[in-house]
Amino acid sequence: MIAYTLNFTNIHSTAAPPEPHSESSVPSRSIPRSRVSIRNVEIGGDGFVVIAGPCAVESDEQIQASAELVAAHGVQVLRGGAFKARTSPYTFQGLGLDGVKLMRDAADRCGLPMITEVLSERDVESMLSFVDAFQVGSRNMDNTALLKLLGQVDKPILLKRGFAATIKEWLLAAEYIVVGGNEQVVLCERGIRTFSSETRFTLDLAGALYARQQTRFPVVIDPSHATGNPQLIPPLAAATLAAGLDGLMVEVHPHPEAALSDADQALTPDLFANMMEQLRRFASAAGRPFAR
Amino acid sequence: MIAYTLNFTNIHSTAAPPEPHSESSVPSRSIPRSRVSIRNVEIGGDGFVVIAGPCAVESDEQIQASAELVAAHGVQVLRGGAFKARTSPYTFQGLGLDGVKLMRDAADRCGLPMITEVLSERDVESMLSFVDAFQVGSRNMDNTALLKLLGQVDKPILLKRGFAATIKEWLLAAEYIVVGGNEQVVLCERGIRTFSSETRFTLDLAGALYARQQTRFPVVIDPSHATGNPQLIPPLAAATLAAGLDGLMVEVHPHPEAALSDADQALTPDLFANMMEQLRRFASAAGRPFAR
Amino acid sequence: MIAYTLNFTNIHSTAAPPEPHSESSVPSRSIPRSRVSIRNVEIGGDGFVVIAGPCAVESDEQIQASAELVAAHGVQVLRGGAFKARTSPYTFQGLGLDGVKLMRDAADRCGLPMITEVLSERDVESMLSFVDAFQVGSRNMDNTALLKLLGQVDKPILLKRGFAATIKEWLLAAEYIVVGGNEQVVLCERGIRTFSSETRFTLDLAGALYARQQTRFPVVIDPSHATGNPQLIPPLAAATLAAGLDGLMVEVHPHPEAALSDADQALTPDLFANMMEQLRRFASAAGRPFAR
Amino acid sequence: MIAYTLNFTNIHSTAAPPEPHSESSVPSRSIPRSRVSIRNVEIGGDGFVVIAGPCAVESDEQIQASAELVAAHGVQVLRGGAFKARTSPYTFQGLGLDGVKLMRDAADRCGLPMITEVLSERDVESMLSFVDAFQVGSRNMDNTALLKLLGQVDKPILLKRGFAATIKEWLLAAEYIVVGGNEQVVLCERGIRTFSSETRFTLDLAGALYARQQTRFPVVIDPSHATGNPQLIPPLAAATLAAGLDGLMVEVHPHPEAALSDADQALTPDLFANMMEQLRRFASAAGRPFAR
Repeated sequence: MIAYTLNFTNIHSTAAPPEPHSESSVPSRSIPRSRVSIRNVEIGGDGFVVIAGPCAVESDEQIQASAELVAAHGVQVLRGGAFKARTSPYTFQGLGLDGVKLMRDAADRCGLPMITEVLSERDVESMLSFVDAFQVGSRNMDNTALLKLLGQVDKPILLKRGFAATIKEWLLAAEYIVVGGNEQVVLCERGIRTFSSETRFTLDLAGALYARQQTRFPVVIDPSHATGNPQLIPPLAAATLAAGLDGLMVEVHPHPEAALSDADQALTPDLFANMMEQLRRFASAAGRPFAR
Repeated sequence: MIAYTLNFTNIHSTAAPPEPHSESSVPSRSIPRSRVSIRNVEIGGDGFVVIAGPCAVESDEQIQASAELVAAHGVQVLRGGAFKARTSPYTFQGLGLDGVKLMRDAADRCGLPMITEVLSERDVESMLSFVDAFQVGSRNMDNTALLKLLGQVDKPILLKRGFAATIKEWLLAAEYIVVGGNEQVVLCERGIRTFSSETRFTLDLAGALYARQQTRFPVVIDPSHATGNPQLIPPLAAATLAAGLDGLMVEVHPHPEAALSDADQALTPDLFANMMEQLRRFASAAGRPFAR
Repeated sequence: MIAYTLNFTNIHSTAAPPEPHSESSVPSRSIPRSRVSIRNVEIGGDGFVVIAGPCAVESDEQIQASAELVAAHGVQVLRGGAFKARTSPYTFQGLGLDGVKLMRDAADRCGLPMITEVLSERDVESMLSFVDAFQVGSRNMDNTALLKLLGQVDKPILLKRGFAATIKEWLLAAEYIVVGGNEQVVLCERGIRTFSSETRFTLDLAGALYARQQTRFPVVIDPSHATGNPQLIPPLAAATLAAGLDGLMVEVHPHPEAALSDADQALTPDLFANMMEQLRRFASAAGRPFAR
Repeated sequence: MIAYTLNFTNIHSTAAPPEPHSESSVPSRSIPRSRVSIRNVEIGGDGFVVIAGPCAVESDEQIQASAELVAAHGVQVLRGGAFKARTSPYTFQGLGLDGVKLMRDAADRCGLPMITEVLSERDVESMLSFVDAFQVGSRNMDNTALLKLLGQVDKPILLKRGFAATIKEWLLAAEYIVVGGNEQVVLCERGIRTFSSETRFTLDLAGALYARQQTRFPVVIDPSHATGNPQLIPPLAAATLAAGLDGLMVEVHPHPEAALSDADQALTPDLFANMMEQLRRFASAAGRPFAR
């Protein structure tokens, strides 16, 4: 028989389940902020954190070049997809656990912590010794079986908002993790699905701000999936910082035109460099620590 | 190690993966219709099939009374939830496998096949010997890990449309099942999430018709979750039949006021009886076999 | 100076303003139904009424052929657009008042009442002697200045639901007409704007049913604008009848391929004839008078 | 007869209609920016412009106090509603032309230009000598009759995005003004209607950026109507500036708790002062002129 909850090497000592948040309460600054550390990188403190990397891990060379690129500009956490949630089963599904290992190597060589998405309950255990944090994608925000399992893991979980989830549903999805004993939750807004079709999704910056008022968890923004338009990412990154949110997750590719997935969505190295430079100026104006 | 794909007793002999459907093709009646049998009940043929039962299995008495009620009115398949996908981890999560077994007994005593929702990859195997068909809920339509696993099962899969999924995404989710070798897919429209808040979701009857034109799979409608309003269910059931769709899935409870979940959404026995009577008249006018 | 409220030849004697409907009340069948007559055609009684015609009046020949086509199949009211609400100012804007007059002639020759859309406060007076009913389009549902003016007219007003309006907003828009003294309001659901892009809009049949429960006004459905797909119109027309709504408004063109606007949305004469035939059968099964 | 296009005292000399914008073109910075002046206040240049005032003009005292408040903090343009687009005809409809005159007086005494909403074609002429700019509200973005009329006026038009309008539809609505000869258009994003209900609407900051890339017109943001939540307005104002947009329109009331409409949406004087202070810092970091 399978005993998922027993044979984790990294199992969280299950404390008493915390009190659920009240969704009906009015926004309050009195909720103590939670600080979540992906290895040595603290999210939810004073600083503004940038998580960056390619949409998908494609090869050793590609993820290595990506890690070097983002590290060179002060990014604090490497991202990349190994298990890919694709709309069609007939498209590239990612390199799987091999991709996770390639990413681990690249991150280590650049001295970065790394985060990658988990799609299946059956992959949690095997990924556990390679990743610094798990990402739950928008399409799995309602996968309560996966969330419950991640509640037993002692690693941070970046929980993307379902693209049709209300703020209340998002916060309750976080509770599915918390109820198992894992308090290390980072929320990530990545765009909601609306009638508006000129951007891929509609980035709900106001919703992210509201979520942050309603909960103790840090909230970061992913403008890459929200818009699918690299030209819009730098101004939205600056907006994220100015609005006082905790960080940013963006897709950047050393050679976007050759990417195996979401090729037209990734920042080019040039746009990325400009964005980081602009963020540095606004962070300084806001008095917030930024980058490495 | 876990080898989900090996130890199913009911494993499907994996055929060559079928050609994917082309989503760009114009609607065509020339796609040969697929007929899916839940035991002896054929969905997708000439007849109009009704699947009914309570939102959740609550007790032996309740599911037994429910099965008797629906059987008495000619319903062909019993439905009921044992593993419940709830928004909050702090609400009733269902009776789990015990609920599945109670439902199996009730169905058998009334001579009905039964269908229930699966939430976790880890439950598929244990449910396999009890259920006649698996339901994948709206919140798991994008759970590709679960879909791939169900592609290896030799049971019909009722795939609800994600409440924010396009028709194309819904049909491609079905392909995640088909690609594993399981062609027994029934599509179920259950309402999409829109700005409109006077009904719980917005039933997309036109989308269901369009989906049926684009694919070979039968398409049924769930007006209970779409509206959350029992007064609207009978006219929408009649509309479903008149529009030429393949069937209906509704929630009915012997005592709705005492239901443990979605209490205000279930048909009362009286509304249910009237609905079945009206459906019988329209089925006759449309020349379609109806009920047992 | 302009005194719009004085020089109408057809002015309604202003009665005391009626009580507003309460939107918070639960659905009730006890609201007495309103019956609205477009000349001799009663909407909101036992019968099922079909309003049909081309998207736009294009020429004397075209509107005459359209009127003959719809009259031949028993349609009770002729529709057609003379003032057209187009997204772009650089596309065909309709024939204006000349189009209204052509339509009046065609309707008279076929013995049909007619309805057409009004776009501007400044056109109400000049249209008044030619039309049997005014249509307010989806894009003008919130044009309260126009609604207030139509409240002073003694002609029926078909008020389309704004494609982003809640039911409550729709019913309150109707009150803007009623408050001026004109109780002859027919509501028309024509699809709402959602993320779903495979149909032009999302037909909200459940919302239309809910609206009918909440108000005394008749409710009809326009599946042409809702879907933009002629293949979907006949099944949705049948669904409208089976659901118990009051009528249907559809676009049909004698030669759709040559239409100046919405060419790909109009029913062909063949599809239209089949639809009317099928409606006749369902109306008979439902015991409802149908067609002329 | 009415000859709206003739008897304006301020009539625009009708130039040849400009070329329509191409919506299919890729975003380009090469479109020359249009600069629109509301009297002496230029929108669309280097500076960041703040337009502020109460939701509605309620009395001489209230609009005077509002004008003094906003002027004291460096706001460049006074806003306020005299003709109010209310959902229900049974609620406060505004003071009408009397409100416009009160606002004119208050603006003059504080040396500010002013802008107010026009709801009816029949009010354009009488408002013309009192206002510095016309606002077209979200609910009238599709009122093409009104837009065409405003195309003949020689005053700036602030065109709010319809809350269910695509960017393309918004830009084409602007063309309805331009085609008449009035190039002085400012676009204003004020939130779109989505499923998300925790904020009143969903502010589409990315859409506003995209619109600005696609057109020559300045683009400003209204976070008051977008969120209906004063706590969210200051961070969204900072985001607007950091994202590089042209300005801001916000509601502020000297005594929000006593406001006759949208009382819970207005900034308090304290929140407003803090917001202006923060904007000043970010404007300085961005090297943009700000406030008077």
